[in-house]
Amino acid sequence: MTCALFQPPLAAAIGVADVLTDLFLVLLAAKLGDELFKRIGQPALVGEILAGVAIGPSLLGLVEPGEVLEVFAELGVVFLLFWVGLETKIGELREVGRAALFVGGLGVVLPFAGGFAIGVVQGEETATSVFIAAALVATSVGITSAVLIDLGVLRTRAARTILGAAVVDDILAMILLAVAVGLAASGGVELGSLAVVVALALAFVAFFALGGTQLMQRRPQLLKEPRFSESPLLPAVILCLGLAALAAQIGLAAIIGAFLAGMMVAETKEQHPIEEEISPLYAFFPPFFFVFIGTEVDLGTLVDLGTLALLAAVTVVAAATKFVGAWLGARELGRRDALVVGAGMVPRGEVGIIVAGIGSTAGVIDAQLFAVIVGMSIATTLLVPPVLRRLVAPPEEAVA
Amino acid sequence: MTCALFQPPLAAAIGVADVLTDLFLVLLAAKLGDELFKRIGQPALVGEILAGVAIGPSLLGLVEPGEVLEVFAELGVVFLLFWVGLETKIGELREVGRAALFVGGLGVVLPFAGGFAIGVVQGEETATSVFIAAALVATSVGITSAVLIDLGVLRTRAARTILGAAVVDDILAMILLAVAVGLAASGGVELGSLAVVVALALAFVAFFALGGTQLMQRRPQLLKEPRFSESPLLPAVILCLGLAALAAQIGLAAIIGAFLAGMMVAETKEQHPIEEEISPLYAFFPPFFFVFIGTEVDLGTLVDLGTLALLAAVTVVAAATKFVGAWLGARELGRRDALVVGAGMVPRGEVGIIVAGIGSTAGVIDAQLFAVIVGMSIATTLLVPPVLRRLVAPPEEAVA
Repeated sequence: MTCALFQPPLAAAIGVADVLTDLFLVLLAAKLGDELFKRIGQPALVGEILAGVAIGPSLLGLVEPGEVLEVFAELGVVFLLFWVGLETKIGELREVGRAALFVGGLGVVLPFAGGFAIGVVQGEETATSVFIAAALVATSVGITSAVLIDLGVLRTRAARTILGAAVVDDILAMILLAVAVGLAASGGVELGSLAVVVALALAFVAFFALGGTQLMQRRPQLLKEPRFSESPLLPAVILCLGLAALAAQIGLAAIIGAFLAGMMVAETKEQHPIEEEISPLYAFFPPFFFVFIGTEVDLGTLVDLGTLALLAAVTVVAAATKFVGAWLGARELGRRDALVVGAGMVPRGEVGIIVAGIGSTAGVIDAQLFAVIVGMSIATTLLVPPVLRRLVAPPEEAVA
Repeated sequence: MTCALFQPPLAAAIGVADVLTDLFLVLLAAKLGDELFKRIGQPALVGEILAGVAIGPSLLGLVEPGEVLEVFAELGVVFLLFWVGLETKIGELREVGRAALFVGGLGVVLPFAGGFAIGVVQGEETATSVFIAAALVATSVGITSAVLIDLGVLRTRAARTILGAAVVDDILAMILLAVAVGLAASGGVELGSLAVVVALALAFVAFFALGGTQLMQRRPQLLKEPRFSESPLLPAVILCLGLAALAAQIGLAAIIGAFLAGMMVAETKEQHPIEEEISPLYAFFPPFFFVFIGTEVDLGTLVDLGTLALLAAVTVVAAATKFVGAWLGARELGRRDALVVGAGMVPRGEVGIIVAGIGSTAGVIDAQLFAVIVGMSIATTLLVPPVLRRLVAPPEEAVA
C-alpha cells in the first residue's frame, strides 16, 4: 500500500484535507494581518490584503487561488454588502439620490476617459484601450464599506452617497464592459441586446429597492413565518443569496443583489433585530475576500522598471480621475463630505481584477497590462483606508 | 457580441453566478424540506436529505454535486460536530469511557463480519468483500448528533456514550479502510506504516482531548487575547478549522478534529458563552451536508429487482449488526440507554459513501455495489431519526 501518512484514505476521496487546510490558512493569515495592523494602528483590511500577498503564489506560495477560495471570497463580499444593506434605509438613500447619481456618473466618465487616454498614449489598439478604460471604471464598494463600518460612520450622508453611487457605478460599469467585450470579440456592439441588458438591470434594482422594501415594510412578519427557523436569520440569508445570484445572472455584480436584500431586511428591523445573528457570518466570510485580493498580486511581473512606471501612471490616473469625478458630483454635500465621497470611491479592488481577467481571456490584455491593472486595483485599495480615516476623524484630531 | 443575457460579462469571469445560484438552491431546498417535515411532524434532517434527492441528478437535476458543494457539505458536518463538542465536557466523556470503548469496538466488529459475509455469499473476491465490510463499519455521528440536538438530549449519558464511541469507531474505521485499500492495491498490508498511522491518530486524539482541554481550563482567556476579534468567535473558528484540517491530514475524519476543538472551547464557557455566536454558522452550513448526502443517491441504478434485493439485504445486515454490537457494548448503561446507543450508532451517512467511492476508484467496487452502498447509507440514515425520537421520548409517551 502507499504510505497512508501522505495519502490519508478517508480524506483522499474528496481532497477535503487540502481544502480545509487552505481555508484554515487563509483565515489564520487574515487574522494575523488584522492583528498586526491593529497593533500598529493601521486599517485592519490592509493587513488582511497584505496577508494575502504574503501567503499567495508571489511570496510564500502557501495557498493557490482556486475555485473554492474564489467562492468564499465572493460570499465574503456578498455578506459584507448584505451587512451594509442592513444598515441602510431606502428612505435615507433617496435623500442623497441626486448626489449619488452625479457621483456615480462623473465617477465613471472621468476614469473611462483617463483609461482610454492611457491606452492611446501607449499606442494600444482601440479594443485594448477600451478595456483599460473599463477596468478603471468600477469602484469596489466592498473595500470602502469595510472602512466606513470600521470607522462607525456608515450612516452618515457621505457614506449613503457612496453606497447609492456604487449602484449607479456598477450599472454603468456593466454597460461599458459589455461594450468592451463586444469590441474585442467582433469589433462592434449590438445596441439592441445591450439595451435589453441595461433595461433588465434597471428593472431589477428598481423592483427590489422600491417594491421589495415596501413589501417588507407592510409585512415584516414574512421573515418569521417559516417554521424551519426560530429566527429570521435563515430566511434573510436565503433572500440574500437569491438576490445575489439573480443579480449575477443578469450581469450585475452579485453584491448589488446582496445590498438590495439587506435593505429589504432592514425594513423589518423594528420587529426583530437581525444584525446580531448576521454578525458571525459577517465575521467569518469577508476575510476570505480581502486575502483573495492579495493572492491575485503577481510581484514577479512587477519587477521591471517599465512596468512599474506604467503601474504608477495608471494608478495616479485611476485615483485622480475617480476622486475628481466623484468629488465634483458630491459638491452639493459641502466641502468635507465631497472629499470623503471622492476618496471613498477610489478603491477598485476586485472589480478591476475581474475586468482585466476578461480582457486577458479575450486576448486584448497582455500579461504586463494584466499585472498593471491588478497592481492598480490593489494600490488604490491600499491607499484609501488611511486617507478616509483621516478625513472622517473629528477635525481637531485630523489636524493634530 | 454574444448575448449578454446568457453570458453576463462580469459574472462570467469566475462562474460566480452559477455557484451562487447552486448555493441558493441548495439552502432553499433544504429549508423547504425542513419546513415540510416539521409541518407533518417528522424529523427535519430527513426532509433536508430528501430535498437533496429531489434537486439532485436523480430527479430534478437542478444541482450537480461538485467540489464547491462538497466543501460546503464538509464544513456543514465540521460545524455540526464543533457544536456538539461545545456541548461536551471532557470530564463527562470520561465517565462513559469504558462503555464508549465497548460500543465503538463491538459496533465495528459485527458490521465488519456482516459485510464480509455478504461479499462471500455473493461470490465476490476478497478485496471486494473487505471493501463492503469497511463500508459497513463507520457510523455517521453527524446524523445522530443532529437528531440528539433536535431532541434536546445531547448531554444525556447515552448521547455522550455515542459521541465517545464515534471517536473509537472512526479510528477503527480508518485502520480497516487502510487495510482494504492495501488489499485492493497490492494484495497485502504493510503493518509498519499502518502502525504509524494508528499511533499518530491515537496521539492526536489524546493530545487535544487531554492536553488541549487542560490548556483551556487553565488559560481560558487565550481565546479573548487577540485584538482582531472582540469576541472569542473567530479564534474558536480558527481552532476548529485547524484541528479539522489536521485530523484530515493524518487520515482521521475532519469532524474528529472539529469535535475536539469544540471540547477545548467548551472548557472556557464560564468565561464567555460562545454558543450564541456559533449558532448562525451552525444554522448556515449543516443544511449543505444533508442536501449533499441526498444528491449522491442514484435512483436510476436502483430500478432493478436484483439490486433492490441486495440493497435490502445489505441495509438489514448493516442496521442489525451495528445495532446489536453497539447495544451489547452499552449494556452496562441499562436497558433503555443501551437501546438508544444501539439505534444511535446505526446511521452510516457520508462515511459509507466515501468508502464506496474509494473502492470504486480502486476498481473493486462496481457501479451496482456502489449504488447499493450509497443506498444503504441513506436508508440507515433515514431510518434512525424516527426510531431515536420514540426511544428518547418520555416512557409514557413512547408507550402511547
